[in-house]
Amino acid sequence: MAVGPSQPVDYLPVPGIRAATTCAGIKKTNRDDLTLFEIQGEHAACAAVFTKNAFCAAPVHVAKSHLAATLPRYLLINSGNANAGLGHAGLTDANQCCGALADLLSVDAQSILPFSTGVIAEPLPVGKIVDALPALIEKLDAQSWSAAARAIMTTDTRPKAVSRRVQVGDASVTITGIAKGAGMIQPNMATMLSFIATDARIDQSLLQTCLQETADASFNCISVDGDTSTNDSLVLMATGAAEMPAITHIDDLRYQQFFDAILSACQELAEAIVRDGEGATKLLRIRVSQAADSAEARQIGMTVANSPLVKTALFAGDPNWGRVLAAVGRAGIVDLDVTKISIHLDEVQIVAHGQRHSGYTEAQGQAVMSRDEICMTIDLGRGDAGAVVLTCDFSYEYVRINAEYRT
Amino acid sequence: MAVGPSQPVDYLPVPGIRAATTCAGIKKTNRDDLTLFEIQGEHAACAAVFTKNAFCAAPVHVAKSHLAATLPRYLLINSGNANAGLGHAGLTDANQCCGALADLLSVDAQSILPFSTGVIAEPLPVGKIVDALPALIEKLDAQSWSAAARAIMTTDTRPKAVSRRVQVGDASVTITGIAKGAGMIQPNMATMLSFIATDARIDQSLLQTCLQETADASFNCISVDGDTSTNDSLVLMATGAAEMPAITHIDDLRYQQFFDAILSACQELAEAIVRDGEGATKLLRIRVSQAADSAEARQIGMTVANSPLVKTALFAGDPNWGRVLAAVGRAGIVDLDVTKISIHLDEVQIVAHGQRHSGYTEAQGQAVMSRDEICMTIDLGRGDAGAVVLTCDFSYEYVRINAEYRT
Repeated sequence: MAVGPSQPVDYLPVPGIRAATTCAGIKKTNRDDLTLFEIQGEHAACAAVFTKNAFCAAPVHVAKSHLAATLPRYLLINSGNANAGLGHAGLTDANQCCGALADLLSVDAQSILPFSTGVIAEPLPVGKIVDALPALIEKLDAQSWSAAARAIMTTDTRPKAVSRRVQVGDASVTITGIAKGAGMIQPNMATMLSFIATDARIDQSLLQTCLQETADASFNCISVDGDTSTNDSLVLMATGAAEMPAITHIDDLRYQQFFDAILSACQELAEAIVRDGEGATKLLRIRVSQAADSAEARQIGMTVANSPLVKTALFAGDPNWGRVLAAVGRAGIVDLDVTKISIHLDEVQIVAHGQRHSGYTEAQGQAVMSRDEICMTIDLGRGDAGAVVLTCDFSYEYVRINAEYRT
Repeated sequence: MAVGPSQPVDYLPVPGIRAATTCAGIKKTNRDDLTLFEIQGEHAACAAVFTKNAFCAAPVHVAKSHLAATLPRYLLINSGNANAGLGHAGLTDANQCCGALADLLSVDAQSILPFSTGVIAEPLPVGKIVDALPALIEKLDAQSWSAAARAIMTTDTRPKAVSRRVQVGDASVTITGIAKGAGMIQPNMATMLSFIATDARIDQSLLQTCLQETADASFNCISVDGDTSTNDSLVLMATGAAEMPAITHIDDLRYQQFFDAILSACQELAEAIVRDGEGATKLLRIRVSQAADSAEARQIGMTVANSPLVKTALFAGDPNWGRVLAAVGRAGIVDLDVTKISIHLDEVQIVAHGQRHSGYTEAQGQAVMSRDEICMTIDLGRGDAGAVVLTCDFSYEYVRINAEYRT
């Protein structure tokens, strides 16, 4: 169950990036569950953002510390086990996997970032992973993106990927990325991971700034159930293989081109996650506009997106605008003048001046709500800022998936 | 569907309070839907707290302004229509009802507080209400509490009430209260109302302080779905009919006795609302202890209580402690040291030092989770403060009720 057709992706290889996948036997099924990325190039950089959850999984701790120490050269990703909730043993296991790979590749263990996704509180099968490493290294290839997009999946019903060539100044650069995640959190089968690569040449610190800001406007603006995972990680690898002078300054016009391209890729991947949300039958795009600042726009958007009452009404195709008003009203915005608020569902205005629009009919609302993809526009009449938040509906299937998950 | 048996209540009349109910025909069914409370006594006081939702319903606006102007003598409550989302017309309608009642009783309209609960965005049937007022006044009686508890119900499956006699200093005072509400919000059938009366003699300002603080530790510590209604109102009437000197100071030992009795009554009514939560099959009592302050204790409790993943696990009877840890971790507590956290489900310790307790077995967790009422204790190891939050589970029935509500 996912909203909209699966889009076939033509995976463009990224110069300087190779990947490999194999079946280490971590998952019960006979599917690839181990992925390796290699980043090559003397101008390479790598940025990452991680979950803000205080309960970070072990690989998140290790990846953060490795990233702070040196430039990553390899990413080792397993699905089927999150290596979370295991205390010191988890850290030891993650380090052991990095150490074994480092020995095989003759690199420093700190140049390897580990990522895990899957069931929590079960020990990481380090032996199986270590045993699979030689074959994995052997398979490194520039064409393995499609296999990687599948190997990182857990409860996802389909792979999520984006690939394109964009112009940055005089250079044509490639951006290819993959993501996984079907709930914002499933601590048992945790959760959102995304790996994006480009051959653009850009300073490390600028790359990190770019990723932080684009993540805020993409992955941090989606909600399946309002929860936040212990394992969420997003990595942007820039190999610098493209023939171009490095982007070193935020005022460089090429930075804006690069930023826009990364933002667009992140938004596409984030949307793919919501479309494949647990039990999702509908996609709701909430555009909050005329806000005093983008923080309050996002706050209102997320409050509406996370309201179980809005989400069940969406599932039922019920234009229950009272639930939307009530969610806006409890979002905690100081001095909110409700008489300035108007709300549209696609082309139909349902609320004007904080109350039912005089021309609105229930039939109009029903017609819009019967669509699979709906845009809700909330104008606050307070300023010029805005935000777009994506969410899906709350269905019987969501309850079933999450109630029966471990039974 | 409600958790636990319905408790029969022996409604003690409160000296100085009379009530009446009648069927004005607001609801489609032939049930009483209009309630009147009368407060008499030269030492009477009346306190109230209202929803913090920016989208207040019209009666909330009117009640707030009347309360600020003078001492209330009558409360007029209708179910079946929330008089919300109607702009100026809603205010006019609420004022018209107060005005008509004021004329019949020869009192100032400002001494009447209006309350409404039911469907939103449909005009209040003022004519039906006004027509029913003479008969309603005729029926005023000290024994009408039980009828009132039923007349204010909407989607509630059973009435919610508390009644007891308590010692305050040398005086024996009566406290009787009723409440309604089955979701924290149902803007279509909105929502929590509670009316509590006592014959204790206490200063108006102290009564308001008492109600604000007891509300924070009772009605503001429950969650069915994390939403907040546009109509929520809680009123505490003190007739002063008891033979006692007035409580005029917060340091008066009798104030603490009175406070404890009101708190206990509010907590009992709040718990009754959660037990009758939409689709509820289980009651979860979340005790957060060893917090740095009560605000963070409540924040963590509410984050766990509102997590759809925790609530679906509760429905399934799944001791999915990873979801609890993840909710604690995303509650936004600064400098949370996860290694100090321990969690118990009833008598079973599931988490120690932020990870699975070494002696814990899945069978132990299953045994606790199969119970209808479960207490989860979360020790933060940061200080001495605490909070208790009540919630219920998230079932197929919740989705059905809220998806099919208007169909």
